[in-house]
Amino acid sequence: MTKVTAQMSVSLDGYYAGPRHTGERSGWLQSEEAAGFFRVTRWVIDAMAWRERQGFAGGEKDVNSDIIAESFEAAGAYVMGRNMADGGEVPWGDEPPFRAPVFVVTHRPRETLMRQGGTSFTYVTDGVASAVEQARAVAGGKNVAIAGGGTLLRQVFQAGLLDELELHIVPVVLGRGMSLFGADIGAGLGAGTDLDAGLGAGTRPGADLGLGLAEKEAIELIPTRVIHTPEVTHIRYTVNGRSALVLDDRGSGSSDLLS
Amino acid sequence: MTKVTAQMSVSLDGYYAGPRHTGERSGWLQSEEAAGFFRVTRWVIDAMAWRERQGFAGGEKDVNSDIIAESFEAAGAYVMGRNMADGGEVPWGDEPPFRAPVFVVTHRPRETLMRQGGTSFTYVTDGVASAVEQARAVAGGKNVAIAGGGTLLRQVFQAGLLDELELHIVPVVLGRGMSLFGADIGAGLGAGTDLDAGLGAGTRPGADLGLGLAEKEAIELIPTRVIHTPEVTHIRYTVNGRSALVLDDRGSGSSDLLS
Repeated sequence: MTKVTAQMSVSLDGYYAGPRHTGERSGWLQSEEAAGFFRVTRWVIDAMAWRERQGFAGGEKDVNSDIIAESFEAAGAYVMGRNMADGGEVPWGDEPPFRAPVFVVTHRPRETLMRQGGTSFTYVTDGVASAVEQARAVAGGKNVAIAGGGTLLRQVFQAGLLDELELHIVPVVLGRGMSLFGADIGAGLGAGTDLDAGLGAGTRPGADLGLGLAEKEAIELIPTRVIHTPEVTHIRYTVNGRSALVLDDRGSGSSDLLS
Repeated sequence: MTKVTAQMSVSLDGYYAGPRHTGERSGWLQSEEAAGFFRVTRWVIDAMAWRERQGFAGGEKDVNSDIIAESFEAAGAYVMGRNMADGGEVPWGDEPPFRAPVFVVTHRPRETLMRQGGTSFTYVTDGVASAVEQARAVAGGKNVAIAGGGTLLRQVFQAGLLDELELHIVPVVLGRGMSLFGADIGAGLGAGTDLDAGLGAGTRPGADLGLGLAEKEAIELIPTRVIHTPEVTHIRYTVNGRSALVLDDRGSGSSDLLS
């Protein structure tokens, strides 16, 4: 049965890249955003299974590589944010690594782009739920993989559309950057960041930053698989949905040694 | 050899409690801070090894309980923040669960408090490094455990005094709350929160929120043990220290499927 899945490499403090690069795209590779991004995805770039799909030589054939190969194999279609699609269009070239239909969530209509090796890019302008449905229809019983980036993943999670999340937790503390669930911290705080969006006009104090959770409401998950390597800890979760945080101190009073 | 260690139960999005309770202490148990706190520490409160130390009956005798017992056993002395010490003084009663010397970092001088069962509270007014040194001197070769709360742990980590960090990652997304490494998100954003401290006067844009990391600087850790249970994933890290984030894209270009 088709599941909607997502993967994300994050630092120990929850960032998937450094602070958002706000200058010209040509400067991205030298940006702090890129420095953080390449640190948390180093295990991916080193993996043979990823390098093969990109047309790169070499790489490690190890557990991390097996996990990437498994993810590619499980995906029958992808959903992707516009930033990622725009950024990848040139470097992915004539034969992108997906080898399956990709649905890009965007506001700008565009004709479907056919590529070699089974990849196509279909531009969906009526929202993320529609993109997920269109991907599901062509996934052939395989999974719909949310390819990223972080903003799209948060939208899918917020909308309750995500069945499974695999976090790849990398043993580094970045201190600031683009955060999967929380506030983006760092450069560019003045304009257009998630923090700005979350705390600015129209948002009540106490609101979370993009998940739309009510007071004392949380999203529960069930860990279903943990694979550990020195480079990264892979934890796979089934999303169990929203529930109220009932006060439940198990008769302990208010003290706790380990907190 | 004595190590400086810390433990923290956190949600999947990095919060160790709900948003900081800013009302009267008597209302804490009903606060959103407490609701989040009791969710991420549920595995602790359910554990027999913790309940025994608190004088509570029952509890689960399982892997989670063993991990708590191990932590108690490994600690020869504790360092604690003032908020935690103040909050615990009454509920911990005449025989607190530590059974070892506790050094409380505070600005208010106070005579050492002797309790039954081996616990004492010594109030240290000359800073966190001094408290760690005083604890080390009496730890008898066992570890100095940073008992909490989160603000103190961040100070110890920031000062480069922490040798080992064990995170207990609980499968829940809280969306907001008090964050171990990042910005506190939620109620009370106007005054006195970490977010306020981090983004307010005197802090340059781009600064992290309390770790004092320079641009393209990170703190590297080495995972040394992973123990997984359905309730919580325990990951122990050795802190390896600060290092520069060198650009290292392994010849990949700028695209990445899994990001």
